[in-house]
Amino acid sequence: MHLATLATPDGTTAGVLLDGQWRRLPADDLSALLATSTQPLTELEPGEVLPDATPVQPLPRPRKVICCGLNYGDHIAETGRERPAYPTLFAKYADTLIGPDEPIELPHGVDIDWEAELAVVVGASLRNADVEQAGAAIAGYTVANDISVRDWQRRTLQWFQGKAWDATTPLGPVVVTPDELDPVRGAEVTCRVNGVERQRGNTRTLVFDCASLLAYISTFTVLRPGDVVLTGTPGGVGMAMDPPLYLRDGDIVEVAVQGIGTLTNRVRLTR
Amino acid sequence: MHLATLATPDGTTAGVLLDGQWRRLPADDLSALLATSTQPLTELEPGEVLPDATPVQPLPRPRKVICCGLNYGDHIAETGRERPAYPTLFAKYADTLIGPDEPIELPHGVDIDWEAELAVVVGASLRNADVEQAGAAIAGYTVANDISVRDWQRRTLQWFQGKAWDATTPLGPVVVTPDELDPVRGAEVTCRVNGVERQRGNTRTLVFDCASLLAYISTFTVLRPGDVVLTGTPGGVGMAMDPPLYLRDGDIVEVAVQGIGTLTNRVRLTR
Repeated sequence: MHLATLATPDGTTAGVLLDGQWRRLPADDLSALLATSTQPLTELEPGEVLPDATPVQPLPRPRKVICCGLNYGDHIAETGRERPAYPTLFAKYADTLIGPDEPIELPHGVDIDWEAELAVVVGASLRNADVEQAGAAIAGYTVANDISVRDWQRRTLQWFQGKAWDATTPLGPVVVTPDELDPVRGAEVTCRVNGVERQRGNTRTLVFDCASLLAYISTFTVLRPGDVVLTGTPGGVGMAMDPPLYLRDGDIVEVAVQGIGTLTNRVRLTR
Repeated sequence: MHLATLATPDGTTAGVLLDGQWRRLPADDLSALLATSTQPLTELEPGEVLPDATPVQPLPRPRKVICCGLNYGDHIAETGRERPAYPTLFAKYADTLIGPDEPIELPHGVDIDWEAELAVVVGASLRNADVEQAGAAIAGYTVANDISVRDWQRRTLQWFQGKAWDATTPLGPVVVTPDELDPVRGAEVTCRVNGVERQRGNTRTLVFDCASLLAYISTFTVLRPGDVVLTGTPGGVGMAMDPPLYLRDGDIVEVAVQGIGTLTNRVRLTR
């Protein structure tokens, strides 16, 4: 199933794509659907067809957006580091998220980089879960662009201030359920900037797969329906180029995960 | 004013301490009071006396709990680092917070350390604020114990997984308004473990003061009423001792900030 939060003339609604048409699901958005649904998503009864529906940011209210860094072998190599024994984790807040086609707004004068990522959406509460329990709690997968302000990220030892700029992390356009996509078997993750491919990786090469990440995180904190975990980016980021290449006003970044879709966002410099 | 979220026989309420007695304020807790109050806290009309009221965790629903590390000169020195040009920031989630007298529950076999801190409570929305605007938006100050799981903190470059264990960060017992406390003029910050003083610092020696921290954070993300910023810990943490000293089952940690009060929490090892 392809699920989305849809903008319609009557406000937002959760929806499901059937035979190329969006149909209504009984919640105002996917956050609400995941928080309130008592039956498996695949058994929900679709409502009416929504002819004028457009996918927006799918998860408006995650309590947690936890990111894994250094999770693809080639990206680890380009940062000069060794294959890790533990996932490198950092936190974002929901304020960072924007939807497909929304602008990435940042001030002039900062070093803006792209990071194409698979994101996993939590479907059930998890605490001290093992990998099997964590895998069973995955509601689906979506696409993220973990836009990073590199000069701020490098100001101190902690990356947070380069990763937590409001309204700079595109997420979406849809959430694909696990019956249709298995990242362990493989899905291509790509990033194109102004039409030029800059990143290409495959989720089968993730050091820590989605279920392992959720289980690990659940050791120290609860994950709830609608929370999001970003699984890391493959090689090819702008800061690793020689010379480094950063995004400029008007640049268009397209991040895609095979089997899910493409996030297209334009950079808009402000202030 | 000393403000608190109070447990009473009829549920929680926001309250204010007047002449040694807790009196009711018109909200279920301080998070709600800060989110909804349209007048200065100092002008609220106190309600009835609450004879059986006990302060609990004062801010049950912060959207953001942002922490500054390496903000006291002596603690920077004991970690072997230089005085920073920028604040080192990392994020927690609200799930980390507990109140005064609640147990700090962690599993056996991890390295548990104390960190006495002044915490600043945000009273108005802030984005791209200057230092003066940020200072005017401070609702008050409280005490925090940024309990850290050092072995997890050191597993990777990012501290988050050592700082984000659910229900391990004591906060409270009261929030003191800026008319009664000015951390720039100075307030002693202390930590005692089983009655032995382990940390003593003064907020006048903070590298980045409260208003500067809020202004800096507001450059990249919005702060809202009820959000909390932890300002860092002075020298004397357990991991810097030779040999390192970590907390054990039953240990009692008392963290105090002069002019606010004391947080007393017992360590309880589980699992």
